[in-house]
Amino acid sequence: MERKRRKSLVMEKRKEVLTSLESLGARIYEQMDKGFFPSIEMPSRSTENIYYDPNVRQFILGGKKVRRSARNIRHLRPFTQLVWTAFFSHELTMHRKTSTLRDVYYSAQAYEMSFKDQQESNNIITDLETVLGLSREDFNIFPEERSAVFGDLTIEYTVPGYEGKRLNLTSHPDGVMIGPALTSAEFVKTTADKVIAIEKGGLFTRFIEESVHKKFNAILVLTAGQAPRATRHFIRRLNRELKLPVYIFTDGDPWGMHIAMVIISGSANAAHLRELTTPDAKWSGVWATDIVNYKLPTDPLDDVDVKRLYELQRDPRYKDPLWQREIKTFLKIKRKAEQEAFSRYGLTYIVDEYLPAKLEETS
Amino acid sequence: MERKRRKSLVMEKRKEVLTSLESLGARIYEQMDKGFFPSIEMPSRSTENIYYDPNVRQFILGGKKVRRSARNIRHLRPFTQLVWTAFFSHELTMHRKTSTLRDVYYSAQAYEMSFKDQQESNNIITDLETVLGLSREDFNIFPEERSAVFGDLTIEYTVPGYEGKRLNLTSHPDGVMIGPALTSAEFVKTTADKVIAIEKGGLFTRFIEESVHKKFNAILVLTAGQAPRATRHFIRRLNRELKLPVYIFTDGDPWGMHIAMVIISGSANAAHLRELTTPDAKWSGVWATDIVNYKLPTDPLDDVDVKRLYELQRDPRYKDPLWQREIKTFLKIKRKAEQEAFSRYGLTYIVDEYLPAKLEETS
Repeated sequence: MERKRRKSLVMEKRKEVLTSLESLGARIYEQMDKGFFPSIEMPSRSTENIYYDPNVRQFILGGKKVRRSARNIRHLRPFTQLVWTAFFSHELTMHRKTSTLRDVYYSAQAYEMSFKDQQESNNIITDLETVLGLSREDFNIFPEERSAVFGDLTIEYTVPGYEGKRLNLTSHPDGVMIGPALTSAEFVKTTADKVIAIEKGGLFTRFIEESVHKKFNAILVLTAGQAPRATRHFIRRLNRELKLPVYIFTDGDPWGMHIAMVIISGSANAAHLRELTTPDAKWSGVWATDIVNYKLPTDPLDDVDVKRLYELQRDPRYKDPLWQREIKTFLKIKRKAEQEAFSRYGLTYIVDEYLPAKLEETS
Repeated sequence: MERKRRKSLVMEKRKEVLTSLESLGARIYEQMDKGFFPSIEMPSRSTENIYYDPNVRQFILGGKKVRRSARNIRHLRPFTQLVWTAFFSHELTMHRKTSTLRDVYYSAQAYEMSFKDQQESNNIITDLETVLGLSREDFNIFPEERSAVFGDLTIEYTVPGYEGKRLNLTSHPDGVMIGPALTSAEFVKTTADKVIAIEKGGLFTRFIEESVHKKFNAILVLTAGQAPRATRHFIRRLNRELKLPVYIFTDGDPWGMHIAMVIISGSANAAHLRELTTPDAKWSGVWATDIVNYKLPTDPLDDVDVKRLYELQRDPRYKDPLWQREIKTFLKIKRKAEQEAFSRYGLTYIVDEYLPAKLEETS
């Protein structure tokens, strides 16, 4: 029963995407049919229209709108590009083919649609996201980067050739890639009661070897540095659809903090989207205070680390006391530590001692 | 029958590693027992002792040796570090635990073994590789990076908890990670007659979506940029154990060429190893001449590209006429192209037209 509901979520999503694209086309057609120059209105993404919203705990767009009209000769080019991009996205989604930002840029040439460079094409794709309120992964434009997952979650694929195929994500002990197929898979069942996201491949493997998935009933996600958007969306689905709390473990430095923060609250340039964040996810470590409490081997902060910490200190996403305390502690101790630093107490200390302590502390 | 032989290869390897480490220990013990200061001799890895060998088609070490002796007070530190690293590697291999370069560096502190920095620890691990003639993955020290594989190959895992478990590498349509478990898996059976290695995640997914594995009977390997050492070893095993020819597809620029070359002939700093190269693998594209012949959309070479091309031109690994011709063509047309550039002819052109043409041309 529960499963049926979830299944329909995935299928409905695809239908919603196709319908959105089609009604965008219909609106344009209608305007022309009535003898008007067609136009498209969308929220402005300029810096002065981006606000942090403490309620949804992410950046959002304000009330300013921009309009692209075929009547304005300077709008003609981006207007046409946007319509083509919507058409091409519809083709991709209809035929269940995936692509990348780069593919779209080059594909345009097959249609004699001109983009002066990759940046121009990327911007138009973001325009389409903004118009539709959907993320580009929804209309099958995926990132290059891949990360991985391992744990007791049975999924059912929906991609061509694998429809209805059910697999458990513990099947391969090195983990399974998070790509377009897994992103669009249905979640069938799990015994896990939490998600643990890990920054680095070596530690991801350590966690699997030490059976963290069993000992802690956890689904393990490798972010492989900054989590690709598809992975952030996947983590959100685990949190929303399966009601699993999410704990994030990164290196103890400003870059590790920010890997966690982007999973939690997203980024300013995705202020037009709502499906890439997991506001209830917790950054569980390595904190600056962990460096002190666990007497970890450290490296000194360098200038760029310090500069970054001052930026984060002023960032509205970091206003909560915990984040502020950790930033201050980093600036005070002037040191940083990697996740592997726990190996100074033996290879399994991180799993045997640190992990349970931090899960308890941040739950 | 064939399978049994392969199975024994994997198991024998582990036994060989343990025996090598134990006899290193025994040699040292014996020397001390006889009242000598213990010492270890190994080939020198200094630049003047690295040669390109056209027969094995990779860099090798020459006849110069270095000796580390406990009698020499300046050797005492690296000698002790080397002995500890051998001990720690033996622990890892015995207990079937994997680690990373970074883990080893921090683990040393658990034994009050001092390394002044990561670089010093990495060097000692390379010393141990040189002494044993084994790569660090053999004694369970793995890279951070992960890449992926997809295709009709049934493997049998040998890692704890998965012993004897057989799986087919088409089971997950996004691909399976190449980590320690897959690296040490046995190859049971395949219907594939070739391996296609691909630089980028987006194209790897495109190839799966377009059923390249079926249409071309291929096992697909994602290198995700420069292939991690474990992936290079995995490709070598596919080539050696299954006798499959290997074709490599990269971007059409000096960096793409070099991704292919490192899979084929390895690097100068792995001159002490023999198990990371696949000398018969082919770089199948994107060639500079493909850019011309297929009229691909291009970007201009920048200064660092040109500088790199001149370096490659003088590199002994690049002396074959094909590589020299391609380098010259790049320098002449002063342009580069990405794999996705083929999308200008439609998303599936690369699979329908380019791939079969290039497989034929380079086979």
